[in-house]
Amino acid sequence: MTTTLISGGTVVSATGRANADVLIDGETIRAVLAPGSTLLGTDVAASVDRVIDATGKYVIPGGIDAHTHMQLPFGGTEASDTFETGTRAAAYGGTTSIVDFAVQTYGQKIQDGLASWHEKAAGNCAIDYGFHQIVGDVNDDSLAAMRTLPDEGISSFKLFMAYPGVFYSDDAQILKAMQLSRDTGLLTMMHAENGPAIDVLAAQLVEARKTDPFYHGKARAWEMEEEATHRAIMLAKLTGAPLYVVHVSAKQAVEQVAWARDKGQNVFAETCPQYLYLSLEEQLGAVSEKWGAFEGAKWVCSTPLRSREEGHQQAMWQSLRTNDVQMVSTDHCPFCMKDQKELGLGDFRKIPNGIGSIEHRMDLMYQGVVTGEITLERWVELTSTTPARMFGMYGQKGVIQPGADADIVVYDPNGHTSIGMPVDEAGNPTGRTHHMNMDHSAWEGFEVDGHVDTVVARGKVIVDHDEYLGAKGDGRFIRRGLSQYLV
Amino acid sequence: MTTTLISGGTVVSATGRANADVLIDGETIRAVLAPGSTLLGTDVAASVDRVIDATGKYVIPGGIDAHTHMQLPFGGTEASDTFETGTRAAAYGGTTSIVDFAVQTYGQKIQDGLASWHEKAAGNCAIDYGFHQIVGDVNDDSLAAMRTLPDEGISSFKLFMAYPGVFYSDDAQILKAMQLSRDTGLLTMMHAENGPAIDVLAAQLVEARKTDPFYHGKARAWEMEEEATHRAIMLAKLTGAPLYVVHVSAKQAVEQVAWARDKGQNVFAETCPQYLYLSLEEQLGAVSEKWGAFEGAKWVCSTPLRSREEGHQQAMWQSLRTNDVQMVSTDHCPFCMKDQKELGLGDFRKIPNGIGSIEHRMDLMYQGVVTGEITLERWVELTSTTPARMFGMYGQKGVIQPGADADIVVYDPNGHTSIGMPVDEAGNPTGRTHHMNMDHSAWEGFEVDGHVDTVVARGKVIVDHDEYLGAKGDGRFIRRGLSQYLV
Amino acid sequence: MTTTLISGGTVVSATGRANADVLIDGETIRAVLAPGSTLLGTDVAASVDRVIDATGKYVIPGGIDAHTHMQLPFGGTEASDTFETGTRAAAYGGTTSIVDFAVQTYGQKIQDGLASWHEKAAGNCAIDYGFHQIVGDVNDDSLAAMRTLPDEGISSFKLFMAYPGVFYSDDAQILKAMQLSRDTGLLTMMHAENGPAIDVLAAQLVEARKTDPFYHGKARAWEMEEEATHRAIMLAKLTGAPLYVVHVSAKQAVEQVAWARDKGQNVFAETCPQYLYLSLEEQLGAVSEKWGAFEGAKWVCSTPLRSREEGHQQAMWQSLRTNDVQMVSTDHCPFCMKDQKELGLGDFRKIPNGIGSIEHRMDLMYQGVVTGEITLERWVELTSTTPARMFGMYGQKGVIQPGADADIVVYDPNGHTSIGMPVDEAGNPTGRTHHMNMDHSAWEGFEVDGHVDTVVARGKVIVDHDEYLGAKGDGRFIRRGLSQYLV
Amino acid sequence: MTTTLISGGTVVSATGRANADVLIDGETIRAVLAPGSTLLGTDVAASVDRVIDATGKYVIPGGIDAHTHMQLPFGGTEASDTFETGTRAAAYGGTTSIVDFAVQTYGQKIQDGLASWHEKAAGNCAIDYGFHQIVGDVNDDSLAAMRTLPDEGISSFKLFMAYPGVFYSDDAQILKAMQLSRDTGLLTMMHAENGPAIDVLAAQLVEARKTDPFYHGKARAWEMEEEATHRAIMLAKLTGAPLYVVHVSAKQAVEQVAWARDKGQNVFAETCPQYLYLSLEEQLGAVSEKWGAFEGAKWVCSTPLRSREEGHQQAMWQSLRTNDVQMVSTDHCPFCMKDQKELGLGDFRKIPNGIGSIEHRMDLMYQGVVTGEITLERWVELTSTTPARMFGMYGQKGVIQPGADADIVVYDPNGHTSIGMPVDEAGNPTGRTHHMNMDHSAWEGFEVDGHVDTVVARGKVIVDHDEYLGAKGDGRFIRRGLSQYLV
Repeated sequence: MTTTLISGGTVVSATGRANADVLIDGETIRAVLAPGSTLLGTDVAASVDRVIDATGKYVIPGGIDAHTHMQLPFGGTEASDTFETGTRAAAYGGTTSIVDFAVQTYGQKIQDGLASWHEKAAGNCAIDYGFHQIVGDVNDDSLAAMRTLPDEGISSFKLFMAYPGVFYSDDAQILKAMQLSRDTGLLTMMHAENGPAIDVLAAQLVEARKTDPFYHGKARAWEMEEEATHRAIMLAKLTGAPLYVVHVSAKQAVEQVAWARDKGQNVFAETCPQYLYLSLEEQLGAVSEKWGAFEGAKWVCSTPLRSREEGHQQAMWQSLRTNDVQMVSTDHCPFCMKDQKELGLGDFRKIPNGIGSIEHRMDLMYQGVVTGEITLERWVELTSTTPARMFGMYGQKGVIQPGADADIVVYDPNGHTSIGMPVDEAGNPTGRTHHMNMDHSAWEGFEVDGHVDTVVARGKVIVDHDEYLGAKGDGRFIRRGLSQYLV
Repeated sequence: MTTTLISGGTVVSATGRANADVLIDGETIRAVLAPGSTLLGTDVAASVDRVIDATGKYVIPGGIDAHTHMQLPFGGTEASDTFETGTRAAAYGGTTSIVDFAVQTYGQKIQDGLASWHEKAAGNCAIDYGFHQIVGDVNDDSLAAMRTLPDEGISSFKLFMAYPGVFYSDDAQILKAMQLSRDTGLLTMMHAENGPAIDVLAAQLVEARKTDPFYHGKARAWEMEEEATHRAIMLAKLTGAPLYVVHVSAKQAVEQVAWARDKGQNVFAETCPQYLYLSLEEQLGAVSEKWGAFEGAKWVCSTPLRSREEGHQQAMWQSLRTNDVQMVSTDHCPFCMKDQKELGLGDFRKIPNGIGSIEHRMDLMYQGVVTGEITLERWVELTSTTPARMFGMYGQKGVIQPGADADIVVYDPNGHTSIGMPVDEAGNPTGRTHHMNMDHSAWEGFEVDGHVDTVVARGKVIVDHDEYLGAKGDGRFIRRGLSQYLV
Repeated sequence: MTTTLISGGTVVSATGRANADVLIDGETIRAVLAPGSTLLGTDVAASVDRVIDATGKYVIPGGIDAHTHMQLPFGGTEASDTFETGTRAAAYGGTTSIVDFAVQTYGQKIQDGLASWHEKAAGNCAIDYGFHQIVGDVNDDSLAAMRTLPDEGISSFKLFMAYPGVFYSDDAQILKAMQLSRDTGLLTMMHAENGPAIDVLAAQLVEARKTDPFYHGKARAWEMEEEATHRAIMLAKLTGAPLYVVHVSAKQAVEQVAWARDKGQNVFAETCPQYLYLSLEEQLGAVSEKWGAFEGAKWVCSTPLRSREEGHQQAMWQSLRTNDVQMVSTDHCPFCMKDQKELGLGDFRKIPNGIGSIEHRMDLMYQGVVTGEITLERWVELTSTTPARMFGMYGQKGVIQPGADADIVVYDPNGHTSIGMPVDEAGNPTGRTHHMNMDHSAWEGFEVDGHVDTVVARGKVIVDHDEYLGAKGDGRFIRRGLSQYLV
Repeated sequence: MTTTLISGGTVVSATGRANADVLIDGETIRAVLAPGSTLLGTDVAASVDRVIDATGKYVIPGGIDAHTHMQLPFGGTEASDTFETGTRAAAYGGTTSIVDFAVQTYGQKIQDGLASWHEKAAGNCAIDYGFHQIVGDVNDDSLAAMRTLPDEGISSFKLFMAYPGVFYSDDAQILKAMQLSRDTGLLTMMHAENGPAIDVLAAQLVEARKTDPFYHGKARAWEMEEEATHRAIMLAKLTGAPLYVVHVSAKQAVEQVAWARDKGQNVFAETCPQYLYLSLEEQLGAVSEKWGAFEGAKWVCSTPLRSREEGHQQAMWQSLRTNDVQMVSTDHCPFCMKDQKELGLGDFRKIPNGIGSIEHRMDLMYQGVVTGEITLERWVELTSTTPARMFGMYGQKGVIQPGADADIVVYDPNGHTSIGMPVDEAGNPTGRTHHMNMDHSAWEGFEVDGHVDTVVARGKVIVDHDEYLGAKGDGRFIRRGLSQYLV
């Protein structure tokens, strides 16, 4: 097997840093060593097949994006990234594992939904991938099928309190699924928004001819995120289920999570880069020459971008420091403006929901280190170590230690990354600066004071200074164990 | 230099576990390696001077006890452990570093207090030691001297809101010291009890002939710990100082800490094993044949043991899980019953305050793992990794990684430890089962389902299956940097 | 018109007491006067038609029970008190006004439901009565009809978050009704329990053969009351609707109400005597010779009686002192054991929900004065003044002042009241000691250190020392205005 | 005795309104009657000596200002209003009772302090007056003397956590006084600011040449009000003392009060008009041609005016609605600019602390009714009924009912009041528009949409449409009972 030494860098973990070399043997980390030439008389650097010089750079466990939606059918179209394009974009951005959502739709069998996701992903991924299971139809059959998920290497399922008629579960269904969560240790993931109430508000806005993307944000009021978060917490308390709230964006929802956590309840939460940086006013309310007030459609996602005036973004950064929110995923769910987002011209309810960020998460969060919002160690914890622990992959993923998969990123704090997609005068893209399959970027113009230099996935260098060296099919399915926070 | 391999064990960190061998070169960890015979063609085990077999055992970073008081003058006597006896006892128990408190008393110069502590410790310690600085007299001189502490390798100072006339600082003094804390990054440590109010209650109790040790606990009401904790938090908020509250015992005090932390304030807290296991009713209220109701004197410490009926102990365990309390120290401050605790016969106010636990902290906290109160990883975090990060030692201490001091404990989960000190019929000790210089044990009768097998301190095996192999003077002064939580 | 003087008593209001005489002219209070013989030269006592001697007694505004269900169809039977029997029992107990709930069932028109209630009540009542409107089917028609309620003298409507398939409104319906509440000033009353979740728990219990009344209390977990209370609060916040939560029984639900009130939201709450005195363990868990474990059926109501061990009763009393709960109603909804409660033998879900207390509310709450839980003034406030203000009757009702309806109770603090219904050896009632149409008493054995002496309703003495002097049809419909808390 | 009828008005109480006439007989209210001509055959209006026509106006219980400091020695000068001038100004503004603070200074006997205050007031007051006792030196003697206060008609005492060396009590002293408060029922009033800490900040500001009045507000940081409020609450909890926090101005201090009240603790609070209307930025930071930046001295009081940007004023209004703050006093403590405030030119610490508002409280609070901040009933409750209940005067004061002192104000909602003191070009007053003995007005330019028409004090009309008809000595000492909130 090929041996590789990443030498001279600063290895960063969730708790601190070390000047250390990392020795990789085949797909696996073999040793972490004090830097320098000889070990027990052996000249290490001279003995390996390849040396990656990480001098002056950070050596971190590969990013884990635990919330993605490749080729998700939604609103009559399908998310524009395939497992192939999406995971390759992830690799460019220093992410070496994803957990995507297999979907059971209403009336479908869980087994069929899962099988279909395996089919989409197998042989197509640039990086390793696991699955959460979306349960869109909680009934006796699906409850029985859920009990088999741990054997399938799937240790978490997701319910929706929003989207009545699509993914929505009512409280009776949630209760039953949570009882199973308590019994099996499967982690309950929750989209916490009061869908029935939001849909009334949305219909009223459309009826009042308030149809622009901006009103998507007004309809999905923070009160209804806070409410659903509290409800999910109480149902979890009643049943004893562990709960993980996805894509939290409202400061009041964080307050509910913090309240439950302070009492010792097993409640966890993630947020996404868009809720840290972007806002209702600036993005959903954006107007462009090309798209007019429909420009905001680029940022239509749920939960929605929140008002900066109300202070949600600042509160979300704080929640990352206080550990009221434990990790950052992307909720990557890309749609092009053309033919996709356009479906919602004249009715924001028909805009496919989603933002593409999988390529930029590591960079965007590193920028939080640069600006002092979080520490370097917290960056690693939020983007890799905690996702691994939360979703039962730690040891194999999320840490640089002997025996772990050699998923390693060399990150250059002196590098620079410009995000976006230049357009010509007509507003049409003139070239790609990102690798997601999108005709625009939600992060146009963002500048990051750091850069992903080298990406090693299970021992193979798949990105080297922006050159993609990997291949379709490099990625393998990750059989996950139960959440390590619940042991 | 001697090379040692700790092989076959499970290396436990604050975030997880690895089956890994640890290679020590002289005083330092050289590498963490996948277990097995060869590395790049070298048979590692065959190449080292010594192999410690850790098969079936936990390999953890040596314990760090960040709150000890060796030979502290208090109440007309002096804590019964010298640096020699106390650090040796620590070593037996798997603790390889302490941070003791150098004392400036009223009217004294800080430099003199510190020098005197260096003198007491130098050449006498079994393990490495650092100092916090107690500031018992905040004035212009001492404020100037405090600014030099970072250069002395001291990055924290402690104030007292209790003990008027001894260590007490009033709010004006605290404010000035905290302004300096904000300016220098020195961490403000606080004994948070409202001393003036408590002293009134104590005097009233004594006047009412309620003189037994039990009333020590009644006088030091939780309301006055909660109050002082809140006051310290607000003074810290006003000044911008980082705050670390020592020996928190009341659940309401934890609520104050949690409240401040939820808002993002840099407030930290420690608790001690006695507040997790012992209680006002059972210990302070104990009656023995030998000592009668004065038996409780063995557990007179401040903050005091709290009522179990009020639920403090359960709340303290919970606070360790929720991270509202971040670490566990001992506040080791031993006094013998004879000639020392006896001073308070007839007046609990004259009982020297303190409990000896330095030898048992690692075991007692491991028992929390056994009973399911905390995880194995949290055990390591609470007893070693966080103390190192909190007090500016991480990298050198608190972690098993290349370049770190080789402070390592091999802990046997299948071992067993009986704590205590057997006595004959007259109630006199018949032999030692602990190594602290005390004529009794505060932990008499505690059984722990685990055992410290081997203790390595800077590469030297100083304890091997209860045999002490170290020497006086093995321990060196630790020059600490600023708290790594504030970077 | 007849003139009456109530002389020599202590007039108690919500804010204090006065030694004063009350002069009644016909149906109305004409004056409140300093006690004594002459006013501007007139010997008052000598000039009136009748003098009621209240020396040594309290003179209070007649009780207002704002939550009753006379002859309510429920679970295949009908509440056993008619407007005739129920209001007469109320009169015996010092209550001179009720607000009952007109019911719109699913598929019915609001107008028809209301008309039917007018029909049931008209000409049958012993005391004045108003109506709230239950809206069991929120749709465009009923929303339009609700806008006409203020003109009908109805200023409040009630929704149910429980009882799916019967009265249940989903969140979309609640949202729409609350928007109307905000627009019209109609007060939204809410039965706050998560019905869909509770029904799952209840079905699971029955399936597990846990069919006794005790499990009614277990199924209706406090977590689901807390949750629904929070949800109602957030929907009210979102819409701007004023909210009144009925029959609060869980301390955690009170915490939610307090949380909203502290932020200045217009949220109100009532509790009932059963939640102050009775418990899950003692009543729902009761076993009798006659009924066995089905004895508990007597106390099956929703929200259910709560666990005393968990401290709900104590918390409810405290909430009355802190004003987190503002008033006390009965939720009077009586069912006999025979033929009614019996329907649930073998399945607690089929037990008609309800307790009869209308006759005892004033006494039971006075006992809280005796035991020091509340003050005398608070008693008047909770039982009369606040109900009048809350539901738009103040000035006419709820206060002793010129121009008000002469609804007055002379209450004897030196009297005594034994509540209950003696039974013979076979457990069959041997005589009536209450006047509600029930074959048992939920308050069997309660002793109250006070007694209703005289009840004056709109100037007519309808009860005099336990003798009923009134007549069917004395009571008239009360046209209520908007809540006076929202002005 | 003279009989008077106030006829045709709307009598407003704390709970509601009535169209009613008030019959006064001598100094006392004899009856409250339905409006109209005859009572039991007597033509009331024709039978009385005098009729005051209140048609279209509010008839309210006379204002009670429970916090005034007439001729208080402070900072080397004395408050500029004597009991004569101050109480006359109060009368003009619709206030018919005050509770002033008798002062025990350090080293003085309480008896002497109290006697001296009796001497200052006796024979000089326009309206009735009571005393609280300031205890500036808690020691065995003063504790003994405090036990006699109830017999003196004094049911409350005040301590200071601020002003070290002047009125300051340390926590040991506070504890002892609060124990006495619990034992006797005397209400503990607290000036809650951390004086020792504030004095450090103030000295540092002055040293940094930040000497303008604005820095008075910066030195007295809200954190130190919050802290002291919490401390007072905890000492009260520990001892069981009832606590009343004076002049609360910080929203965070209110949060502490609310927190304690939610738990059922007997904690009360007042605020003052200045904290509702005025701010740090606008008033303390004011600059005038005459006084430059020293203009702000007019508003130097403690607690200080707070930052509007931080939202304190809005929070204080809300606290009046939520009843977290129960009443509004003035803390009337007037000083002229000339010779008095001027003492602090160049050092804000030397500016005598105080604002004069006694004349305007009723008007300023009525304006809150006009702007919708509070209801008409709440106005009466905050300014009269609650002060009477809180301080043991209810029944005699604070309510319009038979037997009460005839202290009544006829208030015209169609009137108008311009507050202030016009100045000529040189900035010198050109005439009086207020009657307080001050050379400026803190309320210059305030316009109120209402007006005090008639003021009746114990049956005597002392103000009639801005004409003063009273006399020095009209006012008598009020012997107060214990707080009626604690019964």
